[in-house]
Amino acid sequence: MQRFFLLFSFLVVFTALLFQYCSVDHSTAPQLNALQEKANGFSEPLPAHAFAPDVPASDALLLLGKMLYHEPRISKSGVISCSSCHSLATFGVDQTPVSIGHGWQQGPLNAPTVLNAALHRTQFWNGRAADVEAQALLPILDPLEMASSEAHVVEVLSSIPAYVDLFHQAFPEHDEPLVYAHVGTAIGAFERTLLTPSPYDAFLKGDAKALSEMQQQGLEVFIEAGCQACHSGAAMGGNIFVHFITPAERASGKANPGRFEVSGRQADKHFFKVPSLRNVVHTYPYLHDGSIWDLGETVSLVAREMTGRELTANQVEQILAFLESLTGEIPADALVLPVLPASTALTPRPDFN
Amino acid sequence: MQRFFLLFSFLVVFTALLFQYCSVDHSTAPQLNALQEKANGFSEPLPAHAFAPDVPASDALLLLGKMLYHEPRISKSGVISCSSCHSLATFGVDQTPVSIGHGWQQGPLNAPTVLNAALHRTQFWNGRAADVEAQALLPILDPLEMASSEAHVVEVLSSIPAYVDLFHQAFPEHDEPLVYAHVGTAIGAFERTLLTPSPYDAFLKGDAKALSEMQQQGLEVFIEAGCQACHSGAAMGGNIFVHFITPAERASGKANPGRFEVSGRQADKHFFKVPSLRNVVHTYPYLHDGSIWDLGETVSLVAREMTGRELTANQVEQILAFLESLTGEIPADALVLPVLPASTALTPRPDFN
Repeated sequence: MQRFFLLFSFLVVFTALLFQYCSVDHSTAPQLNALQEKANGFSEPLPAHAFAPDVPASDALLLLGKMLYHEPRISKSGVISCSSCHSLATFGVDQTPVSIGHGWQQGPLNAPTVLNAALHRTQFWNGRAADVEAQALLPILDPLEMASSEAHVVEVLSSIPAYVDLFHQAFPEHDEPLVYAHVGTAIGAFERTLLTPSPYDAFLKGDAKALSEMQQQGLEVFIEAGCQACHSGAAMGGNIFVHFITPAERASGKANPGRFEVSGRQADKHFFKVPSLRNVVHTYPYLHDGSIWDLGETVSLVAREMTGRELTANQVEQILAFLESLTGEIPADALVLPVLPASTALTPRPDFN
Repeated sequence: MQRFFLLFSFLVVFTALLFQYCSVDHSTAPQLNALQEKANGFSEPLPAHAFAPDVPASDALLLLGKMLYHEPRISKSGVISCSSCHSLATFGVDQTPVSIGHGWQQGPLNAPTVLNAALHRTQFWNGRAADVEAQALLPILDPLEMASSEAHVVEVLSSIPAYVDLFHQAFPEHDEPLVYAHVGTAIGAFERTLLTPSPYDAFLKGDAKALSEMQQQGLEVFIEAGCQACHSGAAMGGNIFVHFITPAERASGKANPGRFEVSGRQADKHFFKVPSLRNVVHTYPYLHDGSIWDLGETVSLVAREMTGRELTANQVEQILAFLESLTGEIPADALVLPVLPASTALTPRPDFN
């Protein structure tokens, strides 16, 4: 009897200790070294998604967004979709200086990646859209890009019963949910899932070995050189506008007006949103006109132009090593192509002209 | 003891009977009704894949093929890939009368689907390629399509270490595996997996309820009208060439020469390969010039032109119901986009001109 009592007492104490141990959230208190502390000072790990906490996305909305992202019929030609210039197979860009749109026209600026774009404070190089929902609506209508119209998009989608159903499921509180603005809402929702965690996130969260020694040296140089002043936050960019004229623009004497086109203020002339450095190894060519293909050359140029620092070849190599750590994983779900529903007799036909 | 002996004897006999029962392959002897027998007379269920039994495809070859299928850098512009005109999101076609290629040029004929194409006896409308491996090599070089050259393709792929490695893995018996012909071998291997089993396959295999009553009536009409004479085999087409001039060609007085371009024989003028009816609901517009959008209109026209039969509106409706049963499932693996490796300093740059 005494032995049972002893065993019982032991179990009670052991269980109590176990509970106490488990109730402390050990994951919130990682040991950070000095470099990790510095890195967390200007950047932060990617969140799980980029939705506002009080606006959850339903499965229907996300599926609709993915379908519309790949939907060429909403373009005038019927062959251009968001994914034409922002393929997820190539990290959300087309890896060309400027994009090809309707009629083989070329755009004025390099297409930024959709990956992690939802974390940017504004959209486009000149910030003319507030968020990914507003952004998604503009290339569809741009005569140089998809060359469509709001009426055409609504007519196409309304002619296909599967889309009509899906808009009702995605926007259950609306009697007539199939409106142009909701196309942006849905595509934006899909884009808010396109975050790409990388070894740098693991490093920020406490895994000091997630970055190689050379990558850590590169991060030190990146910080010392002042790159982090602009390339900050979870997206490592996307927060502020800076004055930038590229060497190609300077040579040609024709520089894009940048944010001036949006604000009309002289002070905003040639100001561009700082691009995200996430997946930068894959989002070549670089600068707002896509005029430089080499990432090392870009790093040297931007350091010189923005901070006045002349980096050594070794420092550039180290920064390049660090930038490799920003190549992340595209969410597996996002890489699965949706199978699109068939057109009907009412669906407008492609117009190549 | 006697009871044990009896039990033992019973178990021996029971086990023997069980083995005998299991050794008969019951799946090969389904009960087929008369319509199923007729259907099996001219068509057959899709195989699991379209590889020759003695040429298995390795994982490396299939991955390489999928990557090349989605690889725009092998085109002159750097923005056109196989999937541009044969997106798997739209059943392996572009759902336009003719395709848009380099410089917004238009092709002469409607792009056939890649789905189940490996089962066709020849490739292209005029049969100018023997198999999918040979087929895949031609649009890459066509000035109207990807406008590339063999040298350009090899230069692009050789400049990217991940491709060099993958060619070695995919073709382990070759010292220098990165040659143009192997691009076709790899893309063809991927295409041999693009088979789309549908309710019709379940029906052929014995599930009489896989087709609705109206679909079965449609199948009866399809057979009675003689459609099955040309639309036969596992792909429901792709086997023979027939003479066909479309109403649009007749009206314009300009008819595509068809197989004559390949054989040079007058008897082959305006002969075209019979297209597959698999997924036909999604592979609009129809005919070799993509000149008819409505499937019912196409069914009526082709019955009239090919068999001399004037189908009633009701018969056309029934056949349309049957054709729905040929819409299949695209393999889930094939729908997963590959993430493509980055270019290097040696990779040729896009040329939009």
